[in-house]
Amino acid sequence: MRYEFYYWPGIQGRGEFIRLALEAAGADYVDVARRPGNRGVPAMMKLMEDKRAAHPPYAPPFLKAGKLVIAQTAEILFYLGPRLNLAPRDEAGRLWAHQLQLTIADLVTQIHDTHHPVSGWLYFEEQRPAARRRTQDFWRYRVPKMLGYFERVLKQNGGKYSVGRRLSYVDLSLFQIVEGLRYAFPKRMKRFEKKVPQLIALHGRVAKRPRIKAYLSSKRRIPFSQWGIYRYFKELDA
Amino acid sequence: MRYEFYYWPGIQGRGEFIRLALEAAGADYVDVARRPGNRGVPAMMKLMEDKRAAHPPYAPPFLKAGKLVIAQTAEILFYLGPRLNLAPRDEAGRLWAHQLQLTIADLVTQIHDTHHPVSGWLYFEEQRPAARRRTQDFWRYRVPKMLGYFERVLKQNGGKYSVGRRLSYVDLSLFQIVEGLRYAFPKRMKRFEKKVPQLIALHGRVAKRPRIKAYLSSKRRIPFSQWGIYRYFKELDA
Repeated sequence: MRYEFYYWPGIQGRGEFIRLALEAAGADYVDVARRPGNRGVPAMMKLMEDKRAAHPPYAPPFLKAGKLVIAQTAEILFYLGPRLNLAPRDEAGRLWAHQLQLTIADLVTQIHDTHHPVSGWLYFEEQRPAARRRTQDFWRYRVPKMLGYFERVLKQNGGKYSVGRRLSYVDLSLFQIVEGLRYAFPKRMKRFEKKVPQLIALHGRVAKRPRIKAYLSSKRRIPFSQWGIYRYFKELDA
Repeated sequence: MRYEFYYWPGIQGRGEFIRLALEAAGADYVDVARRPGNRGVPAMMKLMEDKRAAHPPYAPPFLKAGKLVIAQTAEILFYLGPRLNLAPRDEAGRLWAHQLQLTIADLVTQIHDTHHPVSGWLYFEEQRPAARRRTQDFWRYRVPKMLGYFERVLKQNGGKYSVGRRLSYVDLSLFQIVEGLRYAFPKRMKRFEKKVPQLIALHGRVAKRPRIKAYLSSKRRIPFSQWGIYRYFKELDA
């Protein structure tokens, strides 16, 4: 099946967790809003605003798989997981991978809110003191607790994969978490990495997989920027 | 099956979405941390910290169903839904209900952050200007967009239920959203309600269901308070 993937064309954002899964599996997909000719975003908006749609998505990313249209990053991965051989097929294993992905989704919101704690409708410069304070607590409490949790999960599962005995979409998402934290907080992350050696080793293994390596050096991988979840502000990386 | 439900005993919090589903279905369950004798919370912590657990939860709420231990509010409801007759049984219907629940989860985080935008480790009084600003944008942009979305979903589905032709856990969660916004923002919510008549009507119908009515007037329903997701601050309800 050819999947139709819908997400904002200019950023990695939440859509990147799905792009990584599609790429790692060598899936047949089209990144609709990035097609040449600027017709992608209107097509995406049309699908969201369709008054007769049975299941209208609240926001991108969403996926069209045949007649099915599904949204919410973690749900899309839950759906794709077994179909792309990136998740266990039994109910308990699928639920466990999904549970980890939902915890990653919580972490992603926390990461975004370090630079925009007060409002997404204000510039960073308009919420600087709040951003500094939120970032401080994020690195003092959240990062050790959340990345420490994934380190423990990896360790309790033998160290190589977070779920089962092979690569899953959870491993790909953890790769993206490490990648993004390195971009947004290079100094802080460098100091922190020694506390989560299994997670860092997983990141390295994922980066070396042939399909992921090819994807990361292709134009399909949108570069990090000052838009989206991960943004670099020197003063937040004290 | 007797379900074991684990959540903080003093607050409604995210656990309440699950309590409502268990109660509406008349399910056989024990609210472990609320058992008499103060042994409930240590039992909950023990399960979370178990170094040999195959699937350790990151945080409450979580549910024990036989040997399965699952966490994350929306995932627990996804699991319980068809088992409690509170969700469709077919894949497309289950995914649709789950997608709506994940959007409700995003809204819940937004609601919490109105009073604690900077940090959960600071008092409200230490982040008052940020809270006022965040609340202003929350009511100006988020509430109309998110509650407007659920209003549309209800309308497109015939008005009575959000999913399919009978009560689902999504309806129960939307009841709890309205209930909580009325507690935290009585004035603002009163003004807003006329914009989402279907949602308000749904709230009324859920409140009148015999099991829900009995639950709400029982001691099992923990009252709203200044802890948890919904908190009342007069200055945020301008």
